[in-house]
Amino acid sequence: MDTNTAELTVGVDIGGTKIAAGVVDAHGQILAHAYRATDPHDPRQIEGAVAETVDELRSQYPQVDAVGVAAAGFVGSDRTTMLFAPNIAWRNHPLGSILTDRIGLPVVIENDANAAAWAEYRFGQGRGADSMVMLTLGTGLGGAIISNGQLIRGSFGAAAELGHMTIVPDGHFCGCGQEGCWEAYASGTALAKLARSVAVADPDGAQAILAAAGGDQIVGAHVTAAARQGDPLATGLLTRFGHYLGVGIATLTAVVDPAVVVVGGGIAAVAGDLILPSARKSFLDNLSGRGFRGEPRIVTADLGNDAGIIGAADSARIPARAAERVLEGAAR
Amino acid sequence: MDTNTAELTVGVDIGGTKIAAGVVDAHGQILAHAYRATDPHDPRQIEGAVAETVDELRSQYPQVDAVGVAAAGFVGSDRTTMLFAPNIAWRNHPLGSILTDRIGLPVVIENDANAAAWAEYRFGQGRGADSMVMLTLGTGLGGAIISNGQLIRGSFGAAAELGHMTIVPDGHFCGCGQEGCWEAYASGTALAKLARSVAVADPDGAQAILAAAGGDQIVGAHVTAAARQGDPLATGLLTRFGHYLGVGIATLTAVVDPAVVVVGGGIAAVAGDLILPSARKSFLDNLSGRGFRGEPRIVTADLGNDAGIIGAADSARIPARAAERVLEGAAR
Amino acid sequence: MDTNTAELTVGVDIGGTKIAAGVVDAHGQILAHAYRATDPHDPRQIEGAVAETVDELRSQYPQVDAVGVAAAGFVGSDRTTMLFAPNIAWRNHPLGSILTDRIGLPVVIENDANAAAWAEYRFGQGRGADSMVMLTLGTGLGGAIISNGQLIRGSFGAAAELGHMTIVPDGHFCGCGQEGCWEAYASGTALAKLARSVAVADPDGAQAILAAAGGDQIVGAHVTAAARQGDPLATGLLTRFGHYLGVGIATLTAVVDPAVVVVGGGIAAVAGDLILPSARKSFLDNLSGRGFRGEPRIVTADLGNDAGIIGAADSARIPARAAERVLEGAAR
Amino acid sequence: MDTNTAELTVGVDIGGTKIAAGVVDAHGQILAHAYRATDPHDPRQIEGAVAETVDELRSQYPQVDAVGVAAAGFVGSDRTTMLFAPNIAWRNHPLGSILTDRIGLPVVIENDANAAAWAEYRFGQGRGADSMVMLTLGTGLGGAIISNGQLIRGSFGAAAELGHMTIVPDGHFCGCGQEGCWEAYASGTALAKLARSVAVADPDGAQAILAAAGGDQIVGAHVTAAARQGDPLATGLLTRFGHYLGVGIATLTAVVDPAVVVVGGGIAAVAGDLILPSARKSFLDNLSGRGFRGEPRIVTADLGNDAGIIGAADSARIPARAAERVLEGAAR
Repeated sequence: MDTNTAELTVGVDIGGTKIAAGVVDAHGQILAHAYRATDPHDPRQIEGAVAETVDELRSQYPQVDAVGVAAAGFVGSDRTTMLFAPNIAWRNHPLGSILTDRIGLPVVIENDANAAAWAEYRFGQGRGADSMVMLTLGTGLGGAIISNGQLIRGSFGAAAELGHMTIVPDGHFCGCGQEGCWEAYASGTALAKLARSVAVADPDGAQAILAAAGGDQIVGAHVTAAARQGDPLATGLLTRFGHYLGVGIATLTAVVDPAVVVVGGGIAAVAGDLILPSARKSFLDNLSGRGFRGEPRIVTADLGNDAGIIGAADSARIPARAAERVLEGAAR
Repeated sequence: MDTNTAELTVGVDIGGTKIAAGVVDAHGQILAHAYRATDPHDPRQIEGAVAETVDELRSQYPQVDAVGVAAAGFVGSDRTTMLFAPNIAWRNHPLGSILTDRIGLPVVIENDANAAAWAEYRFGQGRGADSMVMLTLGTGLGGAIISNGQLIRGSFGAAAELGHMTIVPDGHFCGCGQEGCWEAYASGTALAKLARSVAVADPDGAQAILAAAGGDQIVGAHVTAAARQGDPLATGLLTRFGHYLGVGIATLTAVVDPAVVVVGGGIAAVAGDLILPSARKSFLDNLSGRGFRGEPRIVTADLGNDAGIIGAADSARIPARAAERVLEGAAR
Repeated sequence: MDTNTAELTVGVDIGGTKIAAGVVDAHGQILAHAYRATDPHDPRQIEGAVAETVDELRSQYPQVDAVGVAAAGFVGSDRTTMLFAPNIAWRNHPLGSILTDRIGLPVVIENDANAAAWAEYRFGQGRGADSMVMLTLGTGLGGAIISNGQLIRGSFGAAAELGHMTIVPDGHFCGCGQEGCWEAYASGTALAKLARSVAVADPDGAQAILAAAGGDQIVGAHVTAAARQGDPLATGLLTRFGHYLGVGIATLTAVVDPAVVVVGGGIAAVAGDLILPSARKSFLDNLSGRGFRGEPRIVTADLGNDAGIIGAADSARIPARAAERVLEGAAR
Repeated sequence: MDTNTAELTVGVDIGGTKIAAGVVDAHGQILAHAYRATDPHDPRQIEGAVAETVDELRSQYPQVDAVGVAAAGFVGSDRTTMLFAPNIAWRNHPLGSILTDRIGLPVVIENDANAAAWAEYRFGQGRGADSMVMLTLGTGLGGAIISNGQLIRGSFGAAAELGHMTIVPDGHFCGCGQEGCWEAYASGTALAKLARSVAVADPDGAQAILAAAGGDQIVGAHVTAAARQGDPLATGLLTRFGHYLGVGIATLTAVVDPAVVVVGGGIAAVAGDLILPSARKSFLDNLSGRGFRGEPRIVTADLGNDAGIIGAADSARIPARAAERVLEGAAR
């Protein structure tokens, strides 16, 4: 693909407490950044702040011709409506049209996990892959799926809620009100809860984790810290995390057969090396059809915190490119 | 879509013991059929028989301009290579090219579950849906997924092996060598095994099922027969079948968010009314995000045994049409 | 057994906030009661209050010649040492000797669940049974086992912690720090947690339960109230409670083969009729060896809140009687 | 206990294909053996063979004054009736009286697992323990429990069917017709089935096990052989065996709180060192109340194949001794 810097778009990543935006070129490079603080309780302020970041960036790069916005929540299939946002009071909110009116450029909305995944697919670990699953290990377990060169958004904008696959029947309660969700076994919250429970069951064994917590409530980082010092209990908890991660990846592979599984998010960044070996093992142990099928690579993400900006920006370019690609395919 | 009967293709469905083929128009109507018996132990005979059915049909409808072939197994992403077939000795076999050479028309290969699903999507229960999951309840549990208007085939042609999602950790052995696969809880084989086991655990309670079996080994049909007569144990086994069906559908919905779940296959045909109510209930009981998301319909399939022919025939027309659609989308 | 009222003992039941004591005759009848409030944070006050109730009762019935005391916790096999109490700061505490010194009569200590079970065994639902399991459904799930005419106390005084049998591998967290304990599926706390979670998962379906709660946090009683009004979700939650109750009873039956399972405690009292039918069904569905073995009755308890007093009082009489019985057995 | 060799009894162990008998003294020493082949299809022949072994031994040791007989099955609480035998056509069969008539000495019948456990309790690993659980790992998983110095036989002679505790809800089918029984996860049969399934799922990984099987169907011994050579898959299967063994032991400990868990049977003899370390770990990981309670030792059995003879012989002496003990207890 021979592109020049004339093909610039802006990506905006709406987080819990701040907005990060960037001008992105056709190679996924960020040429300039802009930031604003946000108040999740004031949806209109957020819209204003998004517009400001775009204005700021356009003053530097006037040739920007489209904007992609990444936010947590369910996005309509038109990619302009925010059906539901978990942290902001958006319900069936025409965010795209409002921003288009304010900014004067085409705006597409993308789920934040989808945006990050799309960035990895186009410019990171998924480059060249036919299909890809992205898992984001943070407080929860988010995800995104790309198949046939497109994000799977679902009929109601609710696809790839991967953390809510049921992994253990009648298992741990999940914040969503269900039981046994994947995210109740493989997420930062799950790791912390498990460690706290084990500290009750076996306080002596949990000495190293408790020491890492230093009197505070145990969180995932304390488990990781203890494991880095060789503590067997902490290591076991992360191995179990990996075990359940792999079990779910095997199920996902039965469904979408990806070429690569990219594991991102804060926990992958700080503890990927402690979790992924057991994830890969349990993935293979649970994979149906071994030997008769290709096996996806399971790797950590490349693009870090910028993935949302890059993916959103690239999303704003998708429609035209996708059409191109299909035509090429049809012509073959 | 303004089509005329000039747009005809042939669909060929390669089954375990016979080949069924048909000329299909752009509305999914079969205009003529042709059949051949086959020997699964003689791959070359099968190729000859496929060619014969096409020749027979073209003698009636000379304007046929493409052929789609449905067969069980993993199909390469080029849709001409049979990577692996469970019942025929095809391993990385260039079935499409061989048939193209023999027949003199473009030939595409499609996995049989994919072909049936495509038929439902285009002309049956999935008509008008954005995305769709198809489940085929027979001896095993097969499936197919359509998202963004396309079948999800996967990077290695092994997507939608839905029966091998893990539903119960360390649960029932599956024929694939894994434990706890969905198909080990929701398939004809699973139902029969469960009924046989229950007949050991509680021979008195299982009188009606044993009577239906009449001294033969219990199979799924005996359970259905006893349930139709109001037997509580048999009814309970089918309710449990439905329960596990619904659990898996909830997980699939978290992954692909379909507008409709079409349940086909022999068991859906004869016992769908006994299984689907409990499947719908357990689906809702296990669905994450209720109230914040649309909910797919769960319905039985429309097209029966002809679905493979219709879907394969329509597959042969896909590339051009998909390009059309994307261009329309981009133009909006 | 020909006894006269001369054979009187006192039973004392140390609860969370009060002490209840009674003079009990050889037929398990309580002839007089005495009560004291207690402060669980002041162990010495509790000992004084126990002595006071005994003194008060002996002033009415001077022929009392032994005292049995029931308290929550692990009791040593000598039945005088409190190894561990969950709510009072007793650790390896010689409670029996201390009380004997103060009172001037022989004192035996009994775990409270054991005492209640012993009462049912001797004078309630277990009368005449060879062996018996008692389950106490309250905040938690407690229990006791009588086999060969004796309570099973265990080598460390920790037997019959039935609520901590593992029922679901990697299942719900239990207050004990383990996962999947029986009490995490079949207890008042478990019922409340499940109902709260379901109210998140399906707020519409949970209307009746939420209405019963009237804005307060949901507790088990709200579920029972909604079920009494025919609410299907609440009914389903109690059916599931029963299901897991039955599963655990089947496992216990494999272990101790009781003639009767007595279900007591606050939840059995108010919701036994809503829970026990499904418990009986799932018990039978999970019982190994049906048809080749006797099946225990599963019934609600007879003696209510007095069971602790009666059982403790009778415990003070056991040693002599047990010896009698064995001699009779040997003589047969 | 001051005994002399005048206190001799005979123990008879009725196995699948042979009868082994012995004269046993009060220290559990076997002074002489006698054997007979048996035909499980001819119950009367078996009774005759038992009588012959006793006659043979009495000709050497005329002072023998009681006989204990161990056999597989449910034994009535009178210890003379065979309620049900799995391999011999005994149903409510007065085996004890028949043998008493033939032999002219008091005869007690004991379940074979109970007899072996009693031997360990009196003269082997359980010596001095207050209470004990015995697990017999063979084709299945059998067991016995001793508490308060007595075997727990149950109200219907069906106690300690430990292999049929439910460990995994809706888990592997068990020969008894139930699902998820302990014996379906921790027995020779379970190990073999799991290994065969894994060999299907991952034939490359299973090379060492398949090589050990040398073309025969995989059995447990092949797994053990491969593990001894360091094969990671085989080692993993035995670790998992141990994991489930430990899970069940934790549940049993919650129920009976034994001082010692004795693991016997053919698999313990040949693979105990490969299984018990992971059993001990998972036992502790699943034990409720750690730190507040004593923990049983988990050890392999001492007495091997003679345990049945020794335990049956000693059973014939129990009634008198038990009475003694209780009197002592009461006197303390």
